[in-house]
Amino acid sequence: MVDKLSNSIRYVLRALDIPKNFYELVSLQDVGIKEFAKCLNFLIEEGVVCYNKKLFSLTEKGVELRKKFGIESALHCTSCRKSLLLDKRIKNIFDKFVEITKKRPLISHDFWQEYMLPIDVLYRVEFIRSKNDLENNKFIIIGDDDLLSIALALTGLVKHVTVLEIDKNIVDLINFVAEKENLPITAMVYNVEQALPEKFIGKFDVFVTDPVEAQEGLKLFLSRGLCALKENGVMYFGITSLDTSHKKKLNVQKFLSKNNCVFTDIIKNFSFYGEDFQSSSVKESYSRTKLQELFSFDIGSPDKDWYNSHFIRVQVVGKADCANKEILLGKRLYVDSDVVTFVEEHV
Amino acid sequence: MVDKLSNSIRYVLRALDIPKNFYELVSLQDVGIKEFAKCLNFLIEEGVVCYNKKLFSLTEKGVELRKKFGIESALHCTSCRKSLLLDKRIKNIFDKFVEITKKRPLISHDFWQEYMLPIDVLYRVEFIRSKNDLENNKFIIIGDDDLLSIALALTGLVKHVTVLEIDKNIVDLINFVAEKENLPITAMVYNVEQALPEKFIGKFDVFVTDPVEAQEGLKLFLSRGLCALKENGVMYFGITSLDTSHKKKLNVQKFLSKNNCVFTDIIKNFSFYGEDFQSSSVKESYSRTKLQELFSFDIGSPDKDWYNSHFIRVQVVGKADCANKEILLGKRLYVDSDVVTFVEEHV
Repeated sequence: MVDKLSNSIRYVLRALDIPKNFYELVSLQDVGIKEFAKCLNFLIEEGVVCYNKKLFSLTEKGVELRKKFGIESALHCTSCRKSLLLDKRIKNIFDKFVEITKKRPLISHDFWQEYMLPIDVLYRVEFIRSKNDLENNKFIIIGDDDLLSIALALTGLVKHVTVLEIDKNIVDLINFVAEKENLPITAMVYNVEQALPEKFIGKFDVFVTDPVEAQEGLKLFLSRGLCALKENGVMYFGITSLDTSHKKKLNVQKFLSKNNCVFTDIIKNFSFYGEDFQSSSVKESYSRTKLQELFSFDIGSPDKDWYNSHFIRVQVVGKADCANKEILLGKRLYVDSDVVTFVEEHV
Repeated sequence: MVDKLSNSIRYVLRALDIPKNFYELVSLQDVGIKEFAKCLNFLIEEGVVCYNKKLFSLTEKGVELRKKFGIESALHCTSCRKSLLLDKRIKNIFDKFVEITKKRPLISHDFWQEYMLPIDVLYRVEFIRSKNDLENNKFIIIGDDDLLSIALALTGLVKHVTVLEIDKNIVDLINFVAEKENLPITAMVYNVEQALPEKFIGKFDVFVTDPVEAQEGLKLFLSRGLCALKENGVMYFGITSLDTSHKKKLNVQKFLSKNNCVFTDIIKNFSFYGEDFQSSSVKESYSRTKLQELFSFDIGSPDKDWYNSHFIRVQVVGKADCANKEILLGKRLYVDSDVVTFVEEHV
């Protein structure tokens, strides 16, 4: 328990910033009451939580554990009761993160890159934290042009981040920053069509990816991540409503169901992708997608951020059962009949 | 098109309260760009939307259509960018709705009833509205101790609500209110174990339910709703994290995937259920659930609202394929190995 805390234990440590009664404590847990009961009984037995006059609070041991793992409360909006606000510590890394993102290479349409707004990268980190998946976990990311790995590591709360990325320029930047800032990240060049290196199989707590959206490519990204996860691991991925129809989403959902993955959260329109609207290459690239062909009028080029994705959290129940072999998809990695925002000439 | 608007058409009418350019318009649609393109091209062709100087706006015909169907913008929280605020019109029905809920019969543990807080019933209505599923739609609700049917109808925006409910007292109340207030609701006594009456098969746009949570019972509720839906219908249901483990959720997800249902939204801890904490019957009922047995300490009784559920939206892709026959589950309708908050002696 000292090295690694389960999601439910983290939930209790996070909730007990002030003493709470049973019903307050149980009302927001997310694992089912039986598993939660096991966890709470255990924490009392181990002297982490104490129960007195109908209130639960952390013992000295509990306070230490909370501190050691950097667990603090998540902030929710009081105006609307629901949404997430950025924690002070996450806000504190914003300037540094933006500074680092300025060094990144130009986007490459060869790899369907688009950069997420830096603030939205931090919202992802905050959301992951609010789900008890951040602290002291081992992360694996496939495809990291957003530099999420750096944002995760800058919090000082994760154990390690492994980045597998096809673009050598991005790999080099991440490793350079990691060394300079002394961050626990290792990045390496990897093409998702290759089998996942054996040393990564079943080794990670959390997998995050913003996959390509062609049906076969998307499933390939997710299957690599599932192979990398430990039992009961957690997967996060982004998906748009642009290049993905309901039919394709259903297909992906069937694939995930077969692999014992249960959807726990779907946050609509969570992440926006930024662009330099003045740049002629952006304008030019829009005119080269299939998007225009769908409309009877000139769609022009955008003048503010519009391309966005939903953020989805999936919990593996036990073990996923994906094969891990080389699969050469070629053009199908990037393109299917739904995808219209990809500049196809590059494939 | 005049009698019934698709979700995508409603999206465009809602978004064009002020003129928008293509990218603003497209950024929050949720059907995939190809279907969206078809819709937008169609609206221009039909003279509902006009395109001028790179901006889309509603024509006179569009403005009338918007008015006819009562479509106005959804409000999102500006503090946190994400969550829903209650629209003025929804707020306006709050007092009346609360007044009506005071007349409801005492909860019956025989049917696993718990009443949702009236304000959370209205949040459900607002959420359904924000998803373009409210206006002029035909609803079916199975189990309505929350009186959602009345809240939906009070908005004046739905076409009709059919309520199937096992408790005759609730059916009588709903029909009494519907008649008195001239609301388009029909309620009737129905036990979910019975096959759905033939006249309801494939007839509704939207199905809403807060099902029992025993695995077999839960699937039975959902399957009845799926039978009642038209092609590409929409289903909403609540599910707790208390009586439902990840394993059971996965089982339900597999069932839904098999029936061509794709999860589009999962809103955690969206609805809280209220109780009269002073009432001795509430205290007594807690001591009679299996909840206490799970803990090594006295859980006491709650002193504020704690029991809550997630709200899930599911889109049928084409047609679901459920059987519609009598299925007698007996005790299994209410109880499985996960369920701990049900007073079992009543079954």
